[in-house]
Amino acid sequence: MKDTVTVNWKENMVFEAEMDGHRFVMDAKEEHGGSDQGPRPKPLMMVSLAGCTGMDVISILKKMRVEVDEFSVKIDGDLTDEHPKHFTRMHIIYEFKGKNLPVDKLEKAIELSQDHYCGVSASYRKAMEITHEIKIH
Amino acid sequence: MKDTVTVNWKENMVFEAEMDGHRFVMDAKEEHGGSDQGPRPKPLMMVSLAGCTGMDVISILKKMRVEVDEFSVKIDGDLTDEHPKHFTRMHIIYEFKGKNLPVDKLEKAIELSQDHYCGVSASYRKAMEITHEIKIH
Repeated sequence: MKDTVTVNWKENMVFEAEMDGHRFVMDAKEEHGGSDQGPRPKPLMMVSLAGCTGMDVISILKKMRVEVDEFSVKIDGDLTDEHPKHFTRMHIIYEFKGKNLPVDKLEKAIELSQDHYCGVSASYRKAMEITHEIKIH
Repeated sequence: MKDTVTVNWKENMVFEAEMDGHRFVMDAKEEHGGSDQGPRPKPLMMVSLAGCTGMDVISILKKMRVEVDEFSVKIDGDLTDEHPKHFTRMHIIYEFKGKNLPVDKLEKAIELSQDHYCGVSASYRKAMEITHEIKIH
């Protein structure tokens, strides 16, 4: 399997990303010479992971006939202070809201994503520590 | 250093990413139960790399007083066929357009990004093969 993306330089630090007909703009913050017109590239690493495992979990829960009212995936990343500044750890917080949510099924869905389905997590695990916790309301 | 992102589930396979006040929507394709309202999470791994190294290169070239007319970073990724489907290789194509572009400086800027500055590349190298080429028009 193959996949392709292109980013086109627009001006200054502004780049437009293009993938499968979807476009959005990335930019650096003012203190790094940008104008903050869009997200910075590095946190997109975490968005990629959060979206990947989030989609896994919601589709596994659907198959398990578990209904949640609200669901979010937050990721806290630790970066080195020295160049190249890269992530040493990402901590994933899965947060659910709903009535009588079955904790065992929520945990099982997360485990299936982390161990079997999420290709982003599989890649990042080779490069850093990946941990997670679950919050249920 | 720390960084944080959140993705919030909206409906079906649609998740809204939020980072530093910037928001955009991710979605799965129709064949995977989504409605293709936004980019898929996994290619965002490549967008993150392309944006990171692209911003490095354009800012290094600015310091070198090299002016380019057009600049793009394309990435081709190879994925495994088996779950968890993850990248085994990313190939970066740096493409420049401009008059009398100094090839040695363009190559130097790319080398500095790949070896010293791009934290996304530093992470991915631990998990897969990263290669690149340069095209000058």
